[in-house]
Amino acid sequence: MILDSNKVAAHNDGLYTAHKNKLVFTASEIAETESIIKKLIDFQIAIPSWALGTGGTRFGRFPGGGEPRSLEEKIEDVGLLHALNNASGAISLHIPWDIPTDRNAIKALAAQHGLKFDAVNSNTFQDQADSAYSYKFGSLQNVNKSIRKQAVQHNIDVIQQGVELGSESLTVWLADGSCFPGQLNFRKAYENTLESLQEIYEALPSNWKLFLEYKCAEPNFYSTTVADWGQSYSYVKKLGEQAKTLVDLGHHLPNANIEQIVSLLLMEDKLGGFHFNDSKYGDDDLTAGALKPYQLFLIFNELVEGMDARGMNHATDLGWMIDASHNVKDPMEDLLQSVEAIMIAYAQALSVDRKALEIAQNENDVVKAQEILQNAFRTDVRALVAEARLRAGAALNPVALYRELGVRDALIGARGLKTVATGL
Amino acid sequence: MILDSNKVAAHNDGLYTAHKNKLVFTASEIAETESIIKKLIDFQIAIPSWALGTGGTRFGRFPGGGEPRSLEEKIEDVGLLHALNNASGAISLHIPWDIPTDRNAIKALAAQHGLKFDAVNSNTFQDQADSAYSYKFGSLQNVNKSIRKQAVQHNIDVIQQGVELGSESLTVWLADGSCFPGQLNFRKAYENTLESLQEIYEALPSNWKLFLEYKCAEPNFYSTTVADWGQSYSYVKKLGEQAKTLVDLGHHLPNANIEQIVSLLLMEDKLGGFHFNDSKYGDDDLTAGALKPYQLFLIFNELVEGMDARGMNHATDLGWMIDASHNVKDPMEDLLQSVEAIMIAYAQALSVDRKALEIAQNENDVVKAQEILQNAFRTDVRALVAEARLRAGAALNPVALYRELGVRDALIGARGLKTVATGL
Amino acid sequence: MILDSNKVAAHNDGLYTAHKNKLVFTASEIAETESIIKKLIDFQIAIPSWALGTGGTRFGRFPGGGEPRSLEEKIEDVGLLHALNNASGAISLHIPWDIPTDRNAIKALAAQHGLKFDAVNSNTFQDQADSAYSYKFGSLQNVNKSIRKQAVQHNIDVIQQGVELGSESLTVWLADGSCFPGQLNFRKAYENTLESLQEIYEALPSNWKLFLEYKCAEPNFYSTTVADWGQSYSYVKKLGEQAKTLVDLGHHLPNANIEQIVSLLLMEDKLGGFHFNDSKYGDDDLTAGALKPYQLFLIFNELVEGMDARGMNHATDLGWMIDASHNVKDPMEDLLQSVEAIMIAYAQALSVDRKALEIAQNENDVVKAQEILQNAFRTDVRALVAEARLRAGAALNPVALYRELGVRDALIGARGLKTVATGL
Amino acid sequence: MILDSNKVAAHNDGLYTAHKNKLVFTASEIAETESIIKKLIDFQIAIPSWALGTGGTRFGRFPGGGEPRSLEEKIEDVGLLHALNNASGAISLHIPWDIPTDRNAIKALAAQHGLKFDAVNSNTFQDQADSAYSYKFGSLQNVNKSIRKQAVQHNIDVIQQGVELGSESLTVWLADGSCFPGQLNFRKAYENTLESLQEIYEALPSNWKLFLEYKCAEPNFYSTTVADWGQSYSYVKKLGEQAKTLVDLGHHLPNANIEQIVSLLLMEDKLGGFHFNDSKYGDDDLTAGALKPYQLFLIFNELVEGMDARGMNHATDLGWMIDASHNVKDPMEDLLQSVEAIMIAYAQALSVDRKALEIAQNENDVVKAQEILQNAFRTDVRALVAEARLRAGAALNPVALYRELGVRDALIGARGLKTVATGL
Repeated sequence: MILDSNKVAAHNDGLYTAHKNKLVFTASEIAETESIIKKLIDFQIAIPSWALGTGGTRFGRFPGGGEPRSLEEKIEDVGLLHALNNASGAISLHIPWDIPTDRNAIKALAAQHGLKFDAVNSNTFQDQADSAYSYKFGSLQNVNKSIRKQAVQHNIDVIQQGVELGSESLTVWLADGSCFPGQLNFRKAYENTLESLQEIYEALPSNWKLFLEYKCAEPNFYSTTVADWGQSYSYVKKLGEQAKTLVDLGHHLPNANIEQIVSLLLMEDKLGGFHFNDSKYGDDDLTAGALKPYQLFLIFNELVEGMDARGMNHATDLGWMIDASHNVKDPMEDLLQSVEAIMIAYAQALSVDRKALEIAQNENDVVKAQEILQNAFRTDVRALVAEARLRAGAALNPVALYRELGVRDALIGARGLKTVATGL
Repeated sequence: MILDSNKVAAHNDGLYTAHKNKLVFTASEIAETESIIKKLIDFQIAIPSWALGTGGTRFGRFPGGGEPRSLEEKIEDVGLLHALNNASGAISLHIPWDIPTDRNAIKALAAQHGLKFDAVNSNTFQDQADSAYSYKFGSLQNVNKSIRKQAVQHNIDVIQQGVELGSESLTVWLADGSCFPGQLNFRKAYENTLESLQEIYEALPSNWKLFLEYKCAEPNFYSTTVADWGQSYSYVKKLGEQAKTLVDLGHHLPNANIEQIVSLLLMEDKLGGFHFNDSKYGDDDLTAGALKPYQLFLIFNELVEGMDARGMNHATDLGWMIDASHNVKDPMEDLLQSVEAIMIAYAQALSVDRKALEIAQNENDVVKAQEILQNAFRTDVRALVAEARLRAGAALNPVALYRELGVRDALIGARGLKTVATGL
Repeated sequence: MILDSNKVAAHNDGLYTAHKNKLVFTASEIAETESIIKKLIDFQIAIPSWALGTGGTRFGRFPGGGEPRSLEEKIEDVGLLHALNNASGAISLHIPWDIPTDRNAIKALAAQHGLKFDAVNSNTFQDQADSAYSYKFGSLQNVNKSIRKQAVQHNIDVIQQGVELGSESLTVWLADGSCFPGQLNFRKAYENTLESLQEIYEALPSNWKLFLEYKCAEPNFYSTTVADWGQSYSYVKKLGEQAKTLVDLGHHLPNANIEQIVSLLLMEDKLGGFHFNDSKYGDDDLTAGALKPYQLFLIFNELVEGMDARGMNHATDLGWMIDASHNVKDPMEDLLQSVEAIMIAYAQALSVDRKALEIAQNENDVVKAQEILQNAFRTDVRALVAEARLRAGAALNPVALYRELGVRDALIGARGLKTVATGL
Repeated sequence: MILDSNKVAAHNDGLYTAHKNKLVFTASEIAETESIIKKLIDFQIAIPSWALGTGGTRFGRFPGGGEPRSLEEKIEDVGLLHALNNASGAISLHIPWDIPTDRNAIKALAAQHGLKFDAVNSNTFQDQADSAYSYKFGSLQNVNKSIRKQAVQHNIDVIQQGVELGSESLTVWLADGSCFPGQLNFRKAYENTLESLQEIYEALPSNWKLFLEYKCAEPNFYSTTVADWGQSYSYVKKLGEQAKTLVDLGHHLPNANIEQIVSLLLMEDKLGGFHFNDSKYGDDDLTAGALKPYQLFLIFNELVEGMDARGMNHATDLGWMIDASHNVKDPMEDLLQSVEAIMIAYAQALSVDRKALEIAQNENDVVKAQEILQNAFRTDVRALVAEARLRAGAALNPVALYRELGVRDALIGARGLKTVATGL
């Protein structure tokens, strides 16, 4: 389904006056809105290939209808999202869930939708029907060298597929760990994992990055072999300059100060990118910004400050990806809400008065520092995000337009009510 | 120190044009702003008598200067806050820290500042020099009947003092609990506590409420005898209609859904009131709204919905109190920030489109329900809160005016740099 | 597969001398071991019908071999466990996963293995192929009356099936809740749930109990409609005397004091029973006692003290059930380990010197109270548990005998390597 | 107060027969008990100088009587503990709380009691009356260079004092951090702290170690500048070989897998030592092993395995210290209980069948691995710990002898009922 640009224009026309008024007022409240809008236009958040279908939990899954039945349809769906919000211009493949059969056709299709191929993901947490070995007791950490070899080779294969699509990074998230005390020797699990990662790292093209994601628990419930930022950091330091830590917002123990972790990883030149989502209890994979929008802002506050301090390009020097599971919402609407929340947090962070904040910090003026951050957060920046979309030809209100156009019904009509997206 | 109303007016004049523009714009975004502003004017949040001094932790305390040296000076400080924000029109005494010596003079002083006496608090977590018995192993729960009697009598004395000041509620927060398994018999501790509470309840005037606060931990680190909302609920159900549960936002286990608790207590007619603060790790007693402003909004969202469903008066039918500790900020500025955050959350909750939300809920339109709540939260309502202050003769920007007037320096001049506020 | 009693005897003969020595020594350390052994013989822990197969997480499932393919085979497996440990003499059916087709045959089969039918479980967290309505947005809480009716009827059907099998209790665990703020009205969800529960309660035979289980999160990640013990308590108080709260050890927020909850529910005559498992992060469903054996002991310490205070029968007055998921272990071995850990905790609790503990508590002798509990926990009671098995004709070391007999290989031989147990 | 060795002997005589029987039985259960007993005799746990007095919380303090009034009396108290258990042969000074005035006399007194001076601790979380600058906003992290210099100099002074007493390590625990978002720039706080630590490190004698302790929160409640093991690790890697990470068991976020952290720090040669205590909610500083004895065992399991893998000396190559606060117990009894729990965990870890465990791990035999660890934990090793004391001339039951001798009453007689120990 291709979005008709006339319909976008009609939608925008209807909202234009109210938008313009709001934009003018916003510009009276925030300095340098033009600069902010330009950065918002450039900012793109990749959509994982599995996220177009309804997710589930171990207790079940309640699928919606019209879900994509193939990688082609997934690309079409991401293309539609990108047409609606001009902020989802990339797709992140999970392999072996989404292996292109005809790479040239896939690349052409993506290009047609203005999409790039972001990081490729090498899933080794499920067994495939044709695999020689099982990952029941881990992949890169496995006590069995043959199993480690199989997992290393899978990663190398994934890199190769990514190269052909134009990806430039590999995300390694490992389910490896243990469910019970005594199950594994932590040190040997670390050493096996490091050895495996080194073999993968050696296969990495020189312009690629390897993102090593950490997670405190699940699906292993006693230990995880890359369990926290410190463990990921200790691996990527040993691997080399192209290896970086990837932060998934839902992968921390309760009460963790994620923004501080982000700041320190940036300082160490070891931050690779993000998996955005929100959570209350564990790795809940809820819509980004749905529960802790202030935390999301504080994270972007560190990102903007830290990237600027290093002279980094906001749009391209880190990997930005959604990693949420869409259990009770239409996945497309959920993704639009996630992207919107991320753009708002980014816009708020861009509007922080950094000079005043630095002065307040140097004077230990805690009250003032809080006022500055909360002012940026409390100010309504949505008109800036909408304006960025407007200028790029996307919709002022993507969710509203998605509904006006009856996209889901059209997809159900085209694909059927009961479809099964590959992946989770 | 009495705030000069001319100086308030001058401050407001300087900010008026920008404020008015913002107010007009806000009124274009939110329906029925007049009704909201009126509710904001009526809404008052009590200040605890100990909160005017710098707090500390078990690791130390770093006092500021000019702290109040007497109950009279505390009332003056609250009076100043109220003059600045017209939202702190009550003081909540902690006894035995703040026992009036001349009640009539104290009442007159409070009246002069437009202050009421909110809930009185019966501290039984410290020993007093003249006490016969120690609370080392608890007060109302104590295995020693004589100690329980002492604690019960203290509560009854506190009620009597409250009666004479015009208070109409008693807040009972118990440090009672245990630090080690086996230390106490949970059932007997409950039964002792219930018996003690019943004796206190019998001494309660018929127009009073008894608020029973719960807390998961600290200062006891294994068990607390009123540890969660369910335990408080089970006590207050047995006590009678005048007994209610008090919710302190910092007293929950990690990840608790406080807004759901609030909704259910309201449903059961067992919600008494609030102690506002914010926290990240435990009972951190940080400035309200400093870390989780969306949670604060969601709580007010339940309060507005639930109180309206029961036909309750927002301003008077529940107890609203700050309970934060001001360790690294000027306590007065901290209190102004807390009150501001609470008023903003209340205003946001008042602006929720409840009819649309109810429809979305009835249709299981989760995306829409989120849009409605987040729209209310993302919309900048600060002009409404400021307008409420303006109409009541208070300051458009209380913290700014507090600083312009050099209040802290004046207090240091009057009271000295090294003073010690009674209480924590 | 039926356990050959000669093989049990041969196994026991080989271990007898060492066992006897240990038993004699244990009897020199613990008072009244005979009384303890008798209680251990009587104590039975029900096995859920789904637990004989390998569990999984949302990330995948790694099945073992020889899993039961039918309810009949599940009963055989539980029968085998019971023959090995004489402590698993009941099975708890999850419906609609395990609906008997020929009830008389099933009852005869169970009787042949010495098994009773414990609580029946009414799963409403998955959609069935033939269902008119979906539980995507909840069952008993649903805003749609027809969906609530379907779920109520399912519960009533489950009761009916239980009646015919000889069960005497219904366990209601609800996945109902919400994933996002605004998704549901907490009060109305409560009221709908209460109304539904009342309809189910009315269908309850007079000799039955209704167990209402609570859970803080999962599969809903913002709110759960029966989220904590206080919420369950408030429902069961309204329902009537036959309604009780069921405690699953993994369903609490981090750091919750479960033993205190147990004590208070017993005090209120509202404790119904247990789902045993262990966990570190969330509802991890690990082998009971695998991570926090001291907590398990402390819970049994409260159970023994509280049940004795009420004159309750340990073996029959509460429901004792395993509720763990066997992801990386042979499910049969895992269940044997869980039951062993529970029996040890029970034996330790029975050996606590209660008179001395009461004296220590009355004297606030915290050090002594800890010494008493830790002495009971540190003393090795395994010989008592083994002796209870020996006297009942079961194995001194069930896991060892299970392995000696090559049970899993035999099951694989009989059932095949790739089988799928119904249920999770 | 000096323990009369005749009284120890008399105490031991009374318990000897029962002890011997138990020891013989234990030796029938555990291999190589002689080797274990020898290691237990050598194992010493340092007592912090502040721990002889009753601790408190921010809510108050309930002192006992007879508390030491001087460093001399503290040394005497530790000497008494060591005479009772032969496992507390070191004292760890907190400075400026406990600065020796006459070093030679203090060294002689310690030597008389058989005590060494363990790590010295440089407290910079409180202001001293004679300090030029305040640590309200941090010490080594402070934005003010002069304040950092003061804190660095204090650390260097502490090293100097330690050198003269014979200490060989400095423990740096920093309260530094922030209470509110925006209060500090995380990167600059890190850089300031690193620079300060480097200056301290340069002053370190070549035979010394610098232990950098981490803590997730408290007394700062938004961020801590050395917040987790990863942050400590990143500092000590930059500092050099003599810098190591110190693990305090209570300083982690909820549910952290501490034993894995311990294993990895050992692997990296960056583990320095331990502060032992137990906790349920936060940094509760309860008696070691009082709540999570299995966790304590699992930590020692990693320590024994990891130290042996590196050929380290258990007794001397890491720092072993108590760091608990004795709020509701006699501090001396509490310390005896902590040390006992630690020795038990160590003995259990020494008794693990490591060869069998390694085989089980290599076969992914999770059930077997759990059996091996739980067998070591469930076996009663207390006779080994007691035998180690007996052989070293200490008491078979230290707490019992402490009570038999009426030590506390004697101390109250000598020192008075109301004394104040320096420190917390």
